[in-house]
Amino acid sequence: MPNYKLTLSYDGTRYAGWQRQGNTPGTIQEKIERALSALLEQEIEIAGSGRTDAGAHARAQVASFQAHTQMKPDEILCALRSALPEDIGANALEIADPRFHARLSCRGKTYVYRLWNSEMPCVFDRKYVQRDPRPLDLPAMREAVKHLAGTHDFSAFHANKHLRKSAVRTIYSIDISRDGDEIRFALSGDGFLYNMARIIVGTLLQVGHGEIPPGEIPEILASLDRRRTGPALPAHGLILWDVWY
Amino acid sequence: MPNYKLTLSYDGTRYAGWQRQGNTPGTIQEKIERALSALLEQEIEIAGSGRTDAGAHARAQVASFQAHTQMKPDEILCALRSALPEDIGANALEIADPRFHARLSCRGKTYVYRLWNSEMPCVFDRKYVQRDPRPLDLPAMREAVKHLAGTHDFSAFHANKHLRKSAVRTIYSIDISRDGDEIRFALSGDGFLYNMARIIVGTLLQVGHGEIPPGEIPEILASLDRRRTGPALPAHGLILWDVWY
Repeated sequence: MPNYKLTLSYDGTRYAGWQRQGNTPGTIQEKIERALSALLEQEIEIAGSGRTDAGAHARAQVASFQAHTQMKPDEILCALRSALPEDIGANALEIADPRFHARLSCRGKTYVYRLWNSEMPCVFDRKYVQRDPRPLDLPAMREAVKHLAGTHDFSAFHANKHLRKSAVRTIYSIDISRDGDEIRFALSGDGFLYNMARIIVGTLLQVGHGEIPPGEIPEILASLDRRRTGPALPAHGLILWDVWY
Repeated sequence: MPNYKLTLSYDGTRYAGWQRQGNTPGTIQEKIERALSALLEQEIEIAGSGRTDAGAHARAQVASFQAHTQMKPDEILCALRSALPEDIGANALEIADPRFHARLSCRGKTYVYRLWNSEMPCVFDRKYVQRDPRPLDLPAMREAVKHLAGTHDFSAFHANKHLRKSAVRTIYSIDISRDGDEIRFALSGDGFLYNMARIIVGTLLQVGHGEIPPGEIPEILASLDRRRTGPALPAHGLILWDVWY
Protein backbone atom coordinates (compact mmCIF):
# COMPACT_ATOMS: atom_id res chain seq x y z
CA MET A 1 0.00 0.00 0.00
CA PRO A 2 1.35 3.45 -0.85
CA ASN A 3 2.55 5.45 2.12
CA TYR A 4 1.74 9.18 2.32
CA LYS A 5 3.29 12.19 4.02
CA LEU A 6 0.80 14.95 4.83
CA THR A 7 1.78 18.43 6.07
CA LEU A 8 -0.83 20.38 8.03
CA SER A 9 -1.51 23.75 9.62
CA TYR A 10 -4.12 24.28 12.26
CA ASP A 11 -5.55 26.85 14.60
CA GLY A 12 -5.99 24.69 17.70
CA THR A 13 -8.31 27.14 19.48
CA ARG A 14 -11.46 25.03 19.34
CA TYR A 15 -9.87 21.57 19.51
CA ALA A 16 -9.10 19.15 22.31
CA GLY A 17 -5.56 18.75 20.94
CA TRP A 18 -4.09 16.59 18.20
CA GLN A 19 -4.59 13.08 19.48
CA ARG A 20 -7.78 11.11 18.88
CA GLN A 21 -9.40 10.04 22.14
CA GLY A 22 -11.45 6.95 21.39
CA ASN A 23 -14.53 8.12 19.56
CA THR A 24 -14.73 11.48 21.35
CA PRO A 25 -15.07 14.24 18.75
CA GLY A 26 -13.12 17.47 18.88
CA THR A 27 -9.56 16.38 18.15
CA ILE A 28 -7.61 17.36 15.08
CA GLN A 29 -6.48 13.82 14.29
CA GLU A 30 -10.10 12.65 14.31
CA LYS A 31 -11.20 15.47 11.96
CA ILE A 32 -8.51 14.57 9.43
CA GLU A 33 -9.05 10.81 9.67
CA ARG A 34 -12.78 11.30 9.09
CA ALA A 35 -12.20 13.50 6.06
CA LEU A 36 -9.62 11.12 4.54
CA SER A 37 -11.70 8.02 5.28
CA ALA A 38 -14.75 9.56 3.59
CA LEU A 39 -12.93 10.70 0.49
CA LEU A 40 -10.80 7.57 0.05
CA GLU A 41 -13.71 5.28 1.00
CA GLN A 42 -11.68 3.20 3.46
CA GLU A 43 -10.76 3.49 7.11
CA ILE A 44 -7.68 5.68 7.34
CA GLU A 45 -5.58 5.94 10.46
CA ILE A 46 -2.93 8.67 10.54
CA ALA A 47 0.20 8.92 12.67
CA GLY A 48 1.20 12.45 13.69
CA SER A 49 4.81 13.47 14.36
CA GLY A 50 3.62 13.89 17.94
CA ARG A 51 0.74 15.27 19.93
CA THR A 52 -0.01 18.92 20.30
CA ASP A 53 -1.87 20.03 23.42
CA ALA A 54 -5.47 21.25 23.55
CA GLY A 55 -5.47 24.82 22.25
CA ALA A 56 -1.95 24.69 20.75
CA HIS A 57 -1.46 25.40 17.05
CA ALA A 58 0.63 24.01 14.22
CA ARG A 59 2.23 25.75 11.27
CA ALA A 60 3.63 22.50 9.84
CA GLN A 61 2.53 19.34 11.64
CA VAL A 62 3.38 16.15 9.71
CA ALA A 63 1.30 12.99 9.55
CA SER A 64 1.70 9.72 7.68
CA PHE A 65 -0.86 7.16 6.55
CA GLN A 66 -1.29 4.27 4.16
CA ALA A 67 -4.08 3.96 1.60
CA HIS A 68 -5.00 2.12 -1.55
CA THR A 69 -6.46 4.46 -4.14
CA GLN A 70 -6.50 5.38 -7.81
CA MET A 71 -6.46 9.07 -6.87
CA LYS A 72 -3.27 11.02 -7.40
CA PRO A 73 -1.77 12.89 -4.40
CA ASP A 74 -2.79 16.25 -5.91
CA GLU A 75 -6.37 15.08 -6.27
CA ILE A 76 -6.46 13.80 -2.70
CA LEU A 77 -4.94 17.07 -1.47
CA CYS A 78 -7.48 19.18 -3.34
CA ALA A 79 -10.42 17.10 -2.08
CA LEU A 80 -9.04 17.10 1.46
CA ARG A 81 -8.72 20.91 1.44
CA SER A 82 -12.41 21.19 0.55
CA ALA A 83 -13.42 18.68 3.19
CA LEU A 84 -11.50 20.14 6.12
CA PRO A 85 -12.86 23.00 8.24
CA GLU A 86 -11.25 26.39 7.69
CA ASP A 87 -9.15 26.14 10.87
CA ILE A 88 -7.34 23.02 9.59
CA GLY A 89 -5.30 23.38 6.41
CA ALA A 90 -3.69 20.67 4.30
CA ASN A 91 -0.48 22.22 3.00
CA ALA A 92 1.08 19.35 1.07
CA LEU A 93 0.67 15.66 0.33
CA GLU A 94 3.26 13.40 -1.22
CA ILE A 95 3.96 9.71 -1.61
CA ALA A 96 6.67 8.80 0.89
CA ASP A 97 9.19 6.02 1.24
CA PRO A 98 7.41 2.87 2.49
CA ARG A 99 9.48 3.04 5.69
CA PHE A 100 8.53 6.66 6.43
CA HIS A 101 6.58 7.15 9.66
CA ALA A 102 5.72 10.67 10.87
CA ARG A 103 6.61 9.94 14.49
CA LEU A 104 9.26 7.22 14.28
CA SER A 105 11.20 8.89 11.45
CA CYS A 106 11.16 12.33 13.08
CA ARG A 107 14.65 13.74 13.70
CA GLY A 108 13.64 16.93 15.46
CA LYS A 109 11.12 19.70 15.87
CA THR A 110 10.88 23.42 16.31
CA TYR A 111 8.23 24.97 18.51
CA VAL A 112 7.59 28.71 18.67
CA TYR A 113 6.06 30.39 21.70
CA ARG A 114 4.61 33.87 21.06
CA LEU A 115 4.54 36.35 23.93
CA TRP A 116 2.87 39.77 23.65
CA ASN A 117 5.06 41.87 25.92
CA SER A 118 3.17 45.17 25.92
CA GLU A 119 0.27 47.10 27.39
CA MET A 120 -0.87 47.71 23.81
CA PRO A 121 -3.83 45.67 22.62
CA CYS A 122 -3.14 42.72 20.31
CA VAL A 123 -6.42 42.54 18.46
CA PHE A 124 -5.68 40.52 15.33
CA ASP A 125 -3.38 37.82 16.71
CA ARG A 126 -5.05 37.63 20.10
CA LYS A 127 -5.75 33.89 19.79
CA TYR A 128 -2.11 33.07 19.05
CA VAL A 129 -0.19 35.05 21.67
CA GLN A 130 0.16 34.91 25.42
CA ARG A 131 0.13 38.32 27.07
CA ASP A 132 2.62 39.47 29.69
CA PRO A 133 3.16 43.25 29.72
CA ARG A 134 5.80 43.21 32.50
CA PRO A 135 9.33 44.23 31.50
CA LEU A 136 11.65 41.30 30.81
CA ASP A 137 15.39 41.04 31.25
CA LEU A 138 16.25 39.57 27.86
CA PRO A 139 20.02 39.31 28.45
CA ALA A 140 19.35 37.25 31.61
CA MET A 141 16.96 35.03 29.66
CA ARG A 142 19.53 34.52 26.90
CA GLU A 143 22.08 33.63 29.57
CA ALA A 144 19.70 31.01 31.01
CA VAL A 145 19.14 29.55 27.57
CA LYS A 146 22.82 28.69 27.24
CA HIS A 147 22.45 26.30 30.17
CA LEU A 148 19.36 24.63 28.71
CA ALA A 149 20.83 23.94 25.26
CA GLY A 150 22.48 20.56 24.90
CA THR A 151 21.68 17.08 26.14
CA HIS A 152 20.15 16.95 29.62
CA ASP A 153 17.70 15.01 31.72
CA PHE A 154 14.68 17.31 31.53
CA SER A 155 12.80 15.72 34.42
CA ALA A 156 12.34 19.15 36.03
CA PHE A 157 10.85 20.47 32.79
CA HIS A 158 7.95 18.18 31.94
CA ALA A 159 4.54 17.34 33.34
CA ASN A 160 4.17 13.64 32.62
CA LYS A 161 3.91 12.10 36.06
CA HIS A 162 3.83 8.58 34.66
CA LEU A 163 6.87 8.85 32.41
CA ARG A 164 8.70 5.53 32.61
CA LYS A 165 11.21 6.12 29.87
CA SER A 166 14.16 8.45 29.86
CA ALA A 167 13.65 12.19 30.16
CA VAL A 168 16.95 12.84 28.42
CA ARG A 169 16.50 15.09 25.41
CA THR A 170 18.74 17.30 23.31
CA ILE A 171 17.84 20.96 22.82
CA TYR A 172 19.66 22.23 19.74
CA SER A 173 18.81 25.88 20.28
CA ILE A 174 16.46 28.29 21.98
CA ASP A 175 16.30 31.56 20.14
CA ILE A 176 14.70 34.59 21.80
CA SER A 177 13.86 37.46 19.47
CA ARG A 178 11.90 40.67 19.90
CA ASP A 179 9.86 42.14 17.05
CA GLY A 180 8.12 45.27 18.26
CA ASP A 181 5.74 44.34 21.07
CA GLU A 182 6.20 40.61 20.56
CA ILE A 183 8.84 38.25 21.91
CA ARG A 184 9.26 34.92 20.14
CA PHE A 185 10.86 31.86 21.66
CA ALA A 186 11.95 29.34 19.02
CA LEU A 187 12.88 26.01 20.60
CA SER A 188 14.52 23.31 18.49
CA GLY A 189 15.30 19.85 19.77
CA ASP A 190 15.28 16.15 19.04
CA GLY A 191 12.10 15.70 21.05
CA PHE A 192 9.89 17.44 23.58
CA LEU A 193 8.30 15.87 26.64
CA TYR A 194 4.75 16.61 27.77
CA ASN A 195 4.42 20.40 28.40
CA MET A 196 8.21 20.74 28.08
CA ALA A 197 8.22 23.71 25.67
CA ARG A 198 5.64 25.58 27.78
CA ILE A 199 7.51 24.87 31.04
CA ILE A 200 10.83 25.99 29.55
CA VAL A 201 9.30 29.30 28.43
CA GLY A 202 7.50 29.65 31.78
CA THR A 203 10.83 29.21 33.55
CA LEU A 204 12.54 31.67 31.20
CA LEU A 205 9.88 34.24 32.10
CA GLN A 206 10.74 33.74 35.77
CA VAL A 207 14.36 34.44 34.85
CA GLY A 208 13.22 37.51 32.89
CA HIS A 209 11.31 38.75 35.95
CA GLY A 210 14.33 38.29 38.22
CA GLU A 211 12.78 35.41 40.17
CA ILE A 212 15.39 32.87 39.08
CA PRO A 213 19.05 33.88 38.48
CA PRO A 214 20.18 32.48 35.14
CA GLY A 215 23.17 30.84 36.82
CA GLU A 216 20.79 28.65 38.81
CA ILE A 217 19.57 26.76 35.73
CA PRO A 218 22.26 24.02 35.87
CA GLU A 219 21.31 23.30 39.49
CA ILE A 220 17.58 23.24 38.59
CA LEU A 221 18.27 20.83 35.72
CA ALA A 222 20.33 18.62 38.03
CA SER A 223 17.61 18.60 40.70
CA LEU A 224 15.23 16.75 38.33
CA ASP A 225 12.56 18.46 40.44
CA ARG A 226 9.46 19.85 38.70
CA ARG A 227 8.81 22.09 41.73
CA ARG A 228 11.93 24.12 40.92
CA THR A 229 10.71 25.24 37.45
CA GLY A 230 8.12 27.75 36.30
CA PRO A 231 4.51 27.11 35.31
CA ALA A 232 3.55 25.64 31.95
CA LEU A 233 2.40 28.70 30.02
CA PRO A 234 -1.03 28.53 28.35
CA ALA A 235 -1.21 26.42 25.19
CA HIS A 236 -2.64 29.13 22.90
CA GLY A 237 0.78 30.82 22.58
CA LEU A 238 2.42 27.62 21.33
CA ILE A 239 2.89 26.69 17.68
CA LEU A 240 4.45 23.51 16.33
CA TRP A 241 6.56 25.34 13.75
CA ASP A 242 8.47 22.65 11.93
CA VAL A 243 9.21 18.92 11.96
CA TRP A 244 12.41 17.57 10.44
CA TYR A 245 13.12 14.22 8.82
CA MET B 1 -14.67 70.57 28.04
CA PRO B 2 -11.47 68.75 27.12
CA ASN B 3 -11.47 67.19 23.68
CA TYR B 4 -9.93 63.73 23.22
CA LYS B 5 -8.38 61.84 20.32
CA LEU B 6 -8.70 58.06 20.60
CA THR B 7 -6.94 55.58 18.30
CA LEU B 8 -8.48 52.12 17.96
CA SER B 9 -7.91 48.69 16.42
CA TYR B 10 -10.69 46.23 15.84
CA ASP B 11 -11.45 42.87 14.35
CA GLY B 12 -14.78 43.66 12.69
CA THR B 13 -15.80 40.01 12.21
CA ARG B 14 -18.65 39.94 14.67
CA TYR B 15 -19.82 43.57 14.35
CA ALA B 16 -22.45 45.31 12.26
CA GLY B 17 -19.88 47.92 11.26
CA TRP B 18 -18.62 51.06 12.96
CA GLN B 19 -21.64 53.30 13.04
CA ARG B 20 -24.17 53.21 15.85
CA GLN B 21 -27.67 52.41 14.58
CA GLY B 22 -30.11 53.88 17.10
CA ASN B 23 -30.02 51.62 20.11
CA THR B 24 -29.38 48.45 18.12
CA PRO B 25 -26.43 46.64 19.68
CA GLY B 26 -23.59 45.12 17.70
CA THR B 27 -21.77 48.15 16.34
CA ILE B 28 -18.26 49.13 17.29
CA GLN B 29 -19.16 52.77 18.00
CA GLU B 30 -21.86 51.65 20.42
CA LYS B 31 -19.45 49.28 22.26
CA ILE B 32 -16.94 52.08 22.77
CA GLU B 33 -19.52 54.70 23.74
CA ARG B 34 -20.99 52.36 26.33
CA ALA B 35 -17.57 51.59 27.81
CA LEU B 36 -16.56 55.28 27.94
CA SER B 37 -19.92 56.41 29.32
CA ALA B 38 -19.74 53.84 32.12
CA LEU B 39 -16.20 54.64 33.14
CA LEU B 40 -16.52 58.44 32.87
CA GLU B 41 -20.01 58.41 34.42
CA GLN B 42 -21.52 60.65 31.76
CA GLU B 43 -23.05 60.12 28.35
CA ILE B 44 -20.23 60.08 25.81
CA GLU B 45 -20.79 60.37 22.10
CA ILE B 46 -17.80 59.69 19.86
CA ALA B 47 -17.20 60.79 16.27
CA GLY B 48 -15.25 58.34 14.12
CA SER B 49 -13.05 59.41 11.21
CA GLY B 50 -15.65 57.64 9.09
CA ARG B 51 -17.69 54.45 9.01
CA THR B 52 -16.27 51.05 8.36
CA ASP B 53 -18.56 48.42 6.87
CA ALA B 54 -19.96 45.41 8.66
CA GLY B 55 -17.17 42.85 8.87
CA ALA B 56 -14.35 45.26 7.94
CA HIS B 57 -11.45 45.78 10.31
CA ALA B 58 -9.34 48.69 11.54
CA ARG B 59 -5.69 48.86 12.45
CA ALA B 60 -5.89 52.55 13.41
CA GLN B 61 -9.37 54.06 13.39
CA VAL B 62 -9.53 57.49 15.04
CA ALA B 63 -12.41 58.86 17.10
CA SER B 64 -12.90 62.11 19.02
CA PHE B 65 -15.09 62.93 21.98
CA GLN B 66 -15.52 65.50 24.71
CA ALA B 67 -15.72 64.73 28.41
CA HIS B 68 -15.36 66.39 31.78
CA THR B 69 -13.29 64.26 34.13
CA GLN B 70 -10.58 64.32 36.76
CA MET B 71 -9.05 61.21 35.22
CA LYS B 72 -5.84 61.56 33.29
CA PRO B 73 -5.75 60.27 29.69
CA ASP B 74 -3.51 57.36 30.71
CA GLU B 75 -5.96 56.36 33.42
CA ILE B 76 -8.90 56.54 31.01
CA LEU B 77 -6.93 54.52 28.45
CA CYS B 78 -6.05 51.83 30.96
CA ALA B 79 -9.64 51.54 32.22
CA LEU B 80 -10.98 51.54 28.67
CA ARG B 81 -8.64 48.69 27.67
CA SER B 82 -10.01 46.59 30.52
CA ALA B 83 -13.61 47.44 29.64
CA LEU B 84 -13.47 46.70 25.91
CA PRO B 85 -13.89 43.19 24.48
CA GLU B 86 -10.73 41.52 23.17
CA ASP B 87 -11.63 42.21 19.53
CA ILE B 88 -11.59 45.99 20.12
CA GLY B 89 -8.33 47.56 21.26
CA ALA B 90 -7.67 51.09 22.48
CA ASN B 91 -4.20 51.96 21.20
CA ALA B 92 -3.81 55.54 22.37
CA LEU B 93 -5.67 58.41 23.98
CA GLU B 94 -4.54 62.02 24.09
CA ILE B 95 -6.00 65.45 24.76
CA ALA B 96 -6.50 67.13 21.41
CA ASP B 97 -6.88 70.69 20.21
CA PRO B 98 -10.43 71.95 21.02
CA ARG B 99 -11.11 72.24 17.28
CA PHE B 100 -10.02 68.68 16.50
CA HIS B 101 -12.79 66.47 15.11
CA ALA B 102 -12.02 62.93 13.93
CA ARG B 103 -14.14 63.20 10.78
CA LEU B 104 -14.03 66.90 9.92
CA SER B 105 -10.29 67.31 10.57
CA CYS B 106 -9.35 64.18 8.59
CA ARG B 107 -6.98 64.90 5.69
CA GLY B 108 -6.80 61.41 4.27
CA LYS B 109 -6.90 57.68 4.87
CA THR B 110 -5.18 54.50 3.88
CA TYR B 111 -7.13 51.29 3.43
CA VAL B 112 -5.47 47.92 2.90
CA TYR B 113 -7.21 45.05 1.15
CA ARG B 114 -5.66 41.61 1.74
CA LEU B 115 -6.03 38.96 -0.96
CA TRP B 116 -4.87 35.36 -0.48
CA ASN B 117 -3.81 34.43 -4.00
CA SER B 118 -3.00 30.75 -3.59
CA GLU B 119 -4.45 27.25 -3.39
CA MET B 120 -2.57 26.92 -0.10
CA PRO B 121 -4.65 27.14 3.06
CA CYS B 122 -4.56 30.37 5.06
CA VAL B 123 -5.39 29.06 8.50
CA PHE B 124 -4.22 31.77 10.89
CA ASP B 125 -5.29 34.93 9.04
CA ARG B 126 -8.37 33.36 7.49
CA LYS B 127 -10.70 36.01 8.96
CA TYR B 128 -8.68 38.89 7.51
CA VAL B 129 -8.04 37.83 3.90
CA GLN B 130 -10.21 37.29 0.86
CA ARG B 131 -9.28 34.19 -1.15
CA ASP B 132 -8.81 34.12 -4.90
CA PRO B 133 -6.41 31.41 -6.07
CA ARG B 134 -6.61 32.30 -9.79
CA PRO B 135 -3.44 33.71 -11.37
CA LEU B 136 -3.41 37.50 -11.60
CA ASP B 137 -1.72 39.74 -14.14
CA LEU B 138 -0.01 42.14 -11.74
CA PRO B 139 1.60 44.33 -14.44
CA ALA B 140 -1.86 44.91 -15.98
CA MET B 141 -3.27 45.76 -12.56
CA ARG B 142 -0.44 48.22 -11.89
CA GLU B 143 -1.13 49.78 -15.29
CA ALA B 144 -4.81 50.19 -14.36
CA VAL B 145 -3.88 51.80 -11.08
CA LYS B 146 -2.10 54.64 -12.86
CA HIS B 147 -5.43 55.70 -14.37
CA LEU B 148 -7.22 55.60 -11.00
CA ALA B 149 -4.72 57.73 -9.12
CA GLY B 150 -5.47 61.43 -9.10
CA THR B 151 -8.64 63.48 -8.81
CA HIS B 152 -11.68 61.94 -10.50
CA ASP B 153 -15.44 61.64 -10.22
CA PHE B 154 -15.69 58.15 -8.72
CA SER B 155 -19.42 57.70 -9.46
CA ALA B 156 -18.70 54.38 -11.18
CA PHE B 157 -16.82 53.20 -8.07
CA HIS B 158 -19.23 53.57 -5.17
CA ALA B 159 -22.47 52.01 -4.00
CA ASN B 160 -24.32 54.91 -2.41
CA LYS B 161 -27.44 55.22 -4.55
CA HIS B 162 -28.62 58.29 -2.66
CA LEU B 163 -25.38 60.27 -2.83
CA ARG B 164 -26.37 63.91 -3.37
CA LYS B 165 -22.96 65.44 -2.92
CA SER B 166 -19.99 65.28 -5.22
CA ALA B 167 -18.35 61.93 -5.95
CA VAL B 168 -15.08 63.68 -6.75
CA ARG B 169 -12.24 62.30 -4.67
CA THR B 170 -8.47 62.26 -4.91
CA ILE B 171 -6.61 58.95 -4.79
CA TYR B 172 -3.00 59.64 -3.82
CA SER B 173 -1.73 56.15 -4.50
CA ILE B 174 -2.72 52.53 -4.91
CA ASP B 175 0.14 50.25 -4.12
CA ILE B 176 -0.04 46.57 -5.10
CA SER B 177 2.51 44.32 -3.43
CA ARG B 178 2.96 40.58 -3.26
CA ASP B 179 4.37 38.89 -0.19
CA GLY B 180 4.45 35.13 -0.71
CA ASP B 181 0.91 33.91 -1.25
CA GLU B 182 -0.64 37.26 -0.31
CA ILE B 183 -1.32 40.33 -2.42
CA ARG B 184 -1.91 43.59 -0.59
CA PHE B 185 -3.65 46.60 -2.07
CA ALA B 186 -2.87 49.80 -0.15
CA LEU B 187 -5.19 52.62 -1.19
CA SER B 188 -4.52 56.16 0.03
CA GLY B 189 -6.82 59.07 -0.68
CA ASP B 190 -8.48 62.16 0.70
CA GLY B 191 -11.73 60.28 1.20
CA PHE B 192 -13.52 57.10 0.24
CA LEU B 193 -17.15 56.77 -0.81
CA TYR B 194 -19.40 53.91 0.29
CA ASN B 195 -17.83 50.58 -0.83
CA MET B 196 -15.31 52.53 -2.95
CA ALA B 197 -12.17 50.70 -1.76
CA ARG B 198 -13.82 47.29 -2.21
CA ILE B 199 -15.15 48.18 -5.69
CA ILE B 200 -11.75 49.51 -6.80
CA VAL B 201 -10.07 46.26 -5.75
CA GLY B 202 -12.91 44.22 -7.30
CA THR B 203 -12.35 46.07 -10.58
CA LEU B 204 -8.58 45.60 -10.35
CA LEU B 205 -9.15 41.84 -9.99
CA GLN B 206 -11.18 41.92 -13.21
CA VAL B 207 -8.20 43.61 -14.83
CA GLY B 208 -5.92 40.95 -13.33
CA HIS B 209 -8.14 38.21 -14.78
CA GLY B 210 -8.08 39.79 -18.24
CA GLU B 211 -11.74 40.77 -18.15
CA ILE B 212 -11.06 44.52 -18.36
CA PRO B 213 -8.08 45.91 -20.32
CA PRO B 214 -6.21 48.41 -18.13
CA GLY B 215 -6.48 51.03 -20.88
CA GLU B 216 -10.26 50.99 -20.48
CA ILE B 217 -10.15 52.49 -16.97
CA PRO B 218 -10.30 56.16 -18.11
CA GLU B 219 -13.43 55.39 -20.14
CA ILE B 220 -14.99 53.52 -17.20
CA LEU B 221 -14.23 56.45 -14.88
CA ALA B 222 -15.75 58.88 -17.42
CA SER B 223 -18.89 56.74 -17.82
CA LEU B 224 -19.82 57.39 -14.16
CA ASP B 225 -21.64 54.05 -14.52
CA ARG B 226 -21.53 51.59 -11.64
CA ARG B 227 -22.47 48.77 -14.04
CA ARG B 228 -19.07 49.11 -15.74
CA THR B 229 -17.03 48.30 -12.61
CA GLY B 230 -16.37 45.09 -10.71
CA PRO B 231 -18.14 43.78 -7.64
CA ALA B 232 -17.49 45.15 -4.17
CA LEU B 233 -15.24 42.48 -2.66
CA PRO B 234 -16.25 41.05 0.72
CA ALA B 235 -15.64 43.32 3.71
CA HIS B 236 -13.54 40.85 5.73
CA GLY B 237 -10.46 41.52 3.54
CA LEU B 238 -10.59 45.27 4.22
CA ILE B 239 -8.65 47.08 6.94
CA LEU B 240 -8.74 50.78 7.72
CA TRP B 241 -4.99 51.08 8.02
CA ASP B 242 -4.32 54.72 8.84
CA VAL B 243 -6.05 58.09 9.19
CA TRP B 244 -4.09 61.30 8.73
CA TYR B 245 -4.60 64.73 10.25
